Amino acid sequence: PGPDAAAQQAAGARNAQLTKPAGSLGRLEDLAIWYAGWQGAERPALNRPQVLIFAGNHGVTARGISAFPPEVTVQMVANFKVGGAAINQLAAVAGAELTVHALDLDRPTRDFCEAPAMNEDELLAALRCGWDAVDPQADLLVTGEMGIGNTTSAAAIALALFGGEAADWVGRGTGLDDSGVARKAAVVTDAVALHHPGTGLETLRCLGGREIVAMAGAMARARVLGIPVLLDGFICCAAAACLAAESPTALDHAVAGHASAESAHPALLEKLGKPPLLGLGLRLGEGSGAALAIPLIRAAIACLSGMATFAEAGVADG
Amino acid sequence: PGPDAAAQQAAGARNAQLTKPAGSLGRLEDLAIWYAGWQGAERPALNRPQVLIFAGNHGVTARGISAFPPEVTVQMVANFKVGGAAINQLAAVAGAELTVHALDLDRPTRDFCEAPAMNEDELLAALRCGWDAVDPQADLLVTGEMGIGNTTSAAAIALALFGGEAADWVGRGTGLDDSGVARKAAVVTDAVALHHPGTGLETLRCLGGREIVAMAGAMARARVLGIPVLLDGFICCAAAACLAAESPTALDHAVAGHASAESAHPALLEKLGKPPLLGLGLRLGEGSGAALAIPLIRAAIACLSGMATFAEAGVADG
Repeated sequence: PGPDAAAQQAAGARNAQLTKPAGSLGRLEDLAIWYAGWQGAERPALNRPQVLIFAGNHGVTARGISAFPPEVTVQMVANFKVGGAAINQLAAVAGAELTVHALDLDRPTRDFCEAPAMNEDELLAALRCGWDAVDPQADLLVTGEMGIGNTTSAAAIALALFGGEAADWVGRGTGLDDSGVARKAAVVTDAVALHHPGTGLETLRCLGGREIVAMAGAMARARVLGIPVLLDGFICCAAAACLAAESPTALDHAVAGHASAESAHPALLEKLGKPPLLGLGLRLGEGSGAALAIPLIRAAIACLSGMATFAEAGVADG
Repeated sequence: PGPDAAAQQAAGARNAQLTKPAGSLGRLEDLAIWYAGWQGAERPALNRPQVLIFAGNHGVTARGISAFPPEVTVQMVANFKVGGAAINQLAAVAGAELTVHALDLDRPTRDFCEAPAMNEDELLAALRCGWDAVDPQADLLVTGEMGIGNTTSAAAIALALFGGEAADWVGRGTGLDDSGVARKAAVVTDAVALHHPGTGLETLRCLGGREIVAMAGAMARARVLGIPVLLDGFICCAAAACLAAESPTALDHAVAGHASAESAHPALLEKLGKPPLLGLGLRLGEGSGAALAIPLIRAAIACLSGMATFAEAGVADG
């Protein structure tokens, strides 16, 4: 299924009659028309945005590729549950419902420098977790993550899918120094040399983490349900890239919420063909950059659906 | 008066203890600490944002420098009052109170190619309108405008204050074609050659419009009251630039909400030393770009004031 072409066309025609110079709301106009297509309404409404946080642990952390110890994953899950993390505040400001899904935190993925991160059952279980977490009544979805070590996994995914050098895709994550970044690049090089995943799903299985797989599962479910998605940062986009590798239309329902300060994120967005809405230097994960963009979608929809036309307002249209 | 240094310092110290990698909220961290200083609270709150729209008419419209006829100013004021314009929707999404102030619409300013746009009494009346419109209880201010012809006035102000060529400061406004832009540049050149305003206030009087003067009056009042300001587009920033010409600290309470698609706005922001929060190609005026940025301020404050510290959450801090 895809967007409703008739609704999209009606929204575009309506937009052209609203009391403003043509095009003067810039990207808000494109966003509103895109959203109208997915909601199937000339005058859409945003009532039920959903933020899903998935958490997973990574065997590769044993190689010293993160500035934080792996215990932080479970500690932050507890913090999400009591409302103390950044994403709790950002989801509240955005009027979004937030739920947290921890995936087998006491059973990290295998170190993908030695073996595939997951077997097929584990892959399917994580996909299922993401798939089932989506509220079918939601009208906008953000998927976020927590998983110490997961920028290493995302960089390996990007290198496997798009090629280049490990250094092109490796960044500081939560705050690595230069020697940490070099160690991380060597790990990513080794991992991709070991595996030759031929598909998006195999890439997820060999190089992913459970939270990354769950994000992919949730975004795929949203595509099937016709729920628009705001993409978050580097890790979310690595998950999305695996879907795009499976089908060129897999991300038609997705817009990039922001460009993060993780160094390779802009390049990854370019590979996905998704220009970001925001660029405020965030590099936190948790869905934070995408949640910050929810009010922009809300504003775009409010203008399309709430403004008067030139005829209604008795305003001369230039 | 300026920001509360102790509150700002306390907010910075609190920010450093929150459950996130240091700096990972990017510009949101700077915004929240800046706001904490102006509110004088380590954990500030945003409860009462205000959007003020000022409207004025311009004698210079007789020279064919706008894509829309001058009657549209009063028509759009009526549209603001019944809630049909873009800014009505954007203020509602932002949770901001909106009021509209029309300044002598049936008495346009004089054509500033022939004489100063206003006399001193008219200047003072417009400043007073802006000054009085600010709610002393507001905790964030956006000033927007409506006035057919006012990008011509703003370009003349920018040329008078910052020099260069008229073409550096003239853009398409609401949608001029190339010949219209050339005509507008000639008008701006003539206007600035006629007047030699030595101060920000004289620049407002000779080259401004009543709505531009009122915006300056409102932003000056906000500075005195310690109310933070989000700057809107080219016209708002031209008004702000006249204040900056009067005092180098006049805009310490102001952050740029967005960079608009009006071609000279990025250069004007650079002159003011204000990097924009958003860049979504808006070019509508009405305070629209600044209102769109209010949720970003709200989000920044929510993170600073609502997040748990590492100690509170029992999270290892790397």
